[in-house]
Amino acid sequence: MIPLLAALLLPAALADTEEKKIRTVLDDQAAAWNKGDLNGFMSGYWNSPDLSFYSGKDKKKGWDETFNNYKKRYQADGKEMGTLTFSEEEVQILGPEHAVVKGRWKVVMKKEILEGLYTLIMRKTDQGWKIVHDHTSVGS
Amino acid sequence: MIPLLAALLLPAALADTEEKKIRTVLDDQAAAWNKGDLNGFMSGYWNSPDLSFYSGKDKKKGWDETFNNYKKRYQADGKEMGTLTFSEEEVQILGPEHAVVKGRWKVVMKKEILEGLYTLIMRKTDQGWKIVHDHTSVGS
Repeated sequence: MIPLLAALLLPAALADTEEKKIRTVLDDQAAAWNKGDLNGFMSGYWNSPDLSFYSGKDKKKGWDETFNNYKKRYQADGKEMGTLTFSEEEVQILGPEHAVVKGRWKVVMKKEILEGLYTLIMRKTDQGWKIVHDHTSVGS
Repeated sequence: MIPLLAALLLPAALADTEEKKIRTVLDDQAAAWNKGDLNGFMSGYWNSPDLSFYSGKDKKKGWDETFNNYKKRYQADGKEMGTLTFSEEEVQILGPEHAVVKGRWKVVMKKEILEGLYTLIMRKTDQGWKIVHDHTSVGS
């Protein structure tokens, strides 16, 4: 048990480095969104059929379905992407390969403002930290 | 061979045991709710000012605020608790002390049905597995 536990616990300095990497993923996502680059935004997500996206009472499963959902909501006729900001981010490293990120999101568009909260489960993959589960809620 | 095999199998067996404990916490919560026992339901949550509860665009902070919010929504004048069911639960152990649980919830009341999704971050404490973060969304 001791070697197993030691391998699973992360020194504080290492956790700091990982937290910075995770925050960069979110910063890069917002920057891509605000250039209208939905592909770039999507690179923050795990490119896998096992990615999960929860919103309201609807589940989306897999990278493709998540991407299509974003396209339908923000790039279809008459839609706009607006300006995305993340705020109040809290990052917690849960183990060498997993973290949870909680925070607030806001999209300001010409006709409306959407705002809500998110909880992300992130996993450290060969391609860096990626969102493997996204639970997003919208305020009324 | 035998010790090696045992060492390889142990983590999976341990994860199974922990998963069962976690599912029991949720089963106990639903059973308490359906007896009108909001205190019993709340025992699934970490009794700490650091508990966090996200819904829509509103954050609740701490066990007391979360409890008061439930009382206001389900036990105030003219309110009812109804019948709660959890379904489609998926449990993932992320490390020796953390797990994520995703699933669907439904509350059937006389006048309305509320339904949505949840993502829970759970931590193994001295008092057993407890919800330390709850992100709940409601369908429209």
